[in-house]
Amino acid sequence: VRAVVALRGELRCEETPDPRPGAGEVLVRTLCCGICGTDLHALHHLHMKSLGRAVGPGFGASMDPEIGVVFGHEFSAEVVDYGPDTQRRFRPGTRVVSMPFVAGPGGGGAVGLSNAYPGGYGELMVLAEPMLIAIPNGLGDSAAAMTEPFAVGAHAVGRAALEEPSAAVVIGCGPVGLSVIAALKARGHGPIVAADFSASRRSMAERFGADLVVDPQADCPHAALARLQAGSPGRAVVFECVGLPGVLQSVIEAAPRGALIVVVGACLEPDQFHPFTALTKELEIRFAVAYSAQEFSDTLHAIAEGGLDAQALITRQVGLDGVADAFAELRKPDAQVKIVIRPSDRAA
Amino acid sequence: VRAVVALRGELRCEETPDPRPGAGEVLVRTLCCGICGTDLHALHHLHMKSLGRAVGPGFGASMDPEIGVVFGHEFSAEVVDYGPDTQRRFRPGTRVVSMPFVAGPGGGGAVGLSNAYPGGYGELMVLAEPMLIAIPNGLGDSAAAMTEPFAVGAHAVGRAALEEPSAAVVIGCGPVGLSVIAALKARGHGPIVAADFSASRRSMAERFGADLVVDPQADCPHAALARLQAGSPGRAVVFECVGLPGVLQSVIEAAPRGALIVVVGACLEPDQFHPFTALTKELEIRFAVAYSAQEFSDTLHAIAEGGLDAQALITRQVGLDGVADAFAELRKPDAQVKIVIRPSDRAA
Repeated sequence: VRAVVALRGELRCEETPDPRPGAGEVLVRTLCCGICGTDLHALHHLHMKSLGRAVGPGFGASMDPEIGVVFGHEFSAEVVDYGPDTQRRFRPGTRVVSMPFVAGPGGGGAVGLSNAYPGGYGELMVLAEPMLIAIPNGLGDSAAAMTEPFAVGAHAVGRAALEEPSAAVVIGCGPVGLSVIAALKARGHGPIVAADFSASRRSMAERFGADLVVDPQADCPHAALARLQAGSPGRAVVFECVGLPGVLQSVIEAAPRGALIVVVGACLEPDQFHPFTALTKELEIRFAVAYSAQEFSDTLHAIAEGGLDAQALITRQVGLDGVADAFAELRKPDAQVKIVIRPSDRAA
Repeated sequence: VRAVVALRGELRCEETPDPRPGAGEVLVRTLCCGICGTDLHALHHLHMKSLGRAVGPGFGASMDPEIGVVFGHEFSAEVVDYGPDTQRRFRPGTRVVSMPFVAGPGGGGAVGLSNAYPGGYGELMVLAEPMLIAIPNGLGDSAAAMTEPFAVGAHAVGRAALEEPSAAVVIGCGPVGLSVIAALKARGHGPIVAADFSASRRSMAERFGADLVVDPQADCPHAALARLQAGSPGRAVVFECVGLPGVLQSVIEAAPRGALIVVVGACLEPDQFHPFTALTKELEIRFAVAYSAQEFSDTLHAIAEGGLDAQALITRQVGLDGVADAFAELRKPDAQVKIVIRPSDRAA
């Protein structure tokens, strides 16, 4: 089966062994798969020995950089066949999404972020049967594949535990920031001030519900929010959606006293910050990763029912042959937002 | 008036100008003043330019390293005289404690951590009249001076917002860690596992209410707590009471998934950590500094009513001539816990 394999910092499109479903598992054909910023990070951090130490057991620890990984954890798929000990809940051909986690007999792993479970950068995947959710009729393959990135935003906003409509600052308007903006908007929060160096991402932020967008080189998003709130500020909530070294410290410096910072961007490198600044401001830093099954399912249905324009996130679609080029484009901040792979599409 | 002045990394006992109370201010004679770990840090960070940037306005920003600072923010005192525009609520001779903050006409400052308001390392201080609380009859001067460090623990435990009796891990059993342990115990929390490299500090931790003490070189406090809880763990709460670079990262590595880390130790240097570890565990880091007026007052009364054995914290008392030597002793982790200065005591 054809797949894009990440090995020693490079992506190659090649023939790979067919994945075979084990007990409780399902073989599916990938329909669409988004390229996540985590994949871009992981490509170059796979061979950093410190990564294994940083992540610890349970997530990514089963990525051996010498074996090769098929990325892809934002996917839609159709059921092909079942392994042993399955309930065969969906007939072959059913279109599904799934949280990219498998609790298998060998301890399981993350689909698309482990050696054991190749992800949606390949034509076939093995998923866990209990994780499958049928895609409601009429929802397109690519929009359905956006369930995963939008569930990240839903979870991050859930982690903030906002009890009443709240103002928010969103730092970074890549797919993570946009999904946070969409989730804030869907829950009635605002005003939302979003910051990104890229003009095209700022306009995307407005499309997803930001009330004000700022270029951090020209204005401070926290000051902009303070002006918007004009003397009636609630507790400040900041979503850090960039995940690069130094960004958290810039938020710590700029955030008002008592602010809650929800860190959603995944920074894979060590980072430096000034604890004393955070201490004197009594900041709170809450890290958010992934989502619950409920959040995942709710997000799929919000997309299917039109409450969330998932398709608007997608700026380009490619076949497997186009993945390496797509990675190069995604490294330019202004060029693309979300690129979706259609593994069955032979034309790049 | 005699005072110990911190200037360019050195402490010197010298004659200084008499402080004069401004509008709303009170002149007091220092009875006792504790030496705080922050003073030890500040002595060597006063001349680091980065400090001003790190702390920002409002706290410590008014410390000019070229002028000299009289430290001391954990004190008891007696009223001597009043400035203009005061209500003269307490007659001269009344023994008082006070939060070490003054909101003065020049913007105010921190008593003992600013140039404008010399602290308890001197014979006389100027305080804000509204901040004064009379020491209840019968409570000794040195125990009363411990209101401030124990209020820090009360506030840190308040910041954790524990809704029901909770287990806790306390990292570091210096005065900050001990005050946290005492506050946890007073509020019925437990089991409390406390960690310190020093055997004498571990035994102090037991005295203040730790249910189990561990030497981090021999055991992991989080693993020790898990054994104590034997399968019925609640949400893990960790108090970081050391405040040195690297400690937060060691807590991030060792803490269980979903843990709340309350950072109470003041680390004045930049620190490094691995955000991805905190992210994959969905940790929450809440910084705690100082206390509210209510917490301060409640702490004084808990000490006065015998609910808190503040005197047990004090391992040595010195005069002003003994302060430099006391600093040297406090840098050895095993020698002392809290040293209290009696400025009127001419014999070191």
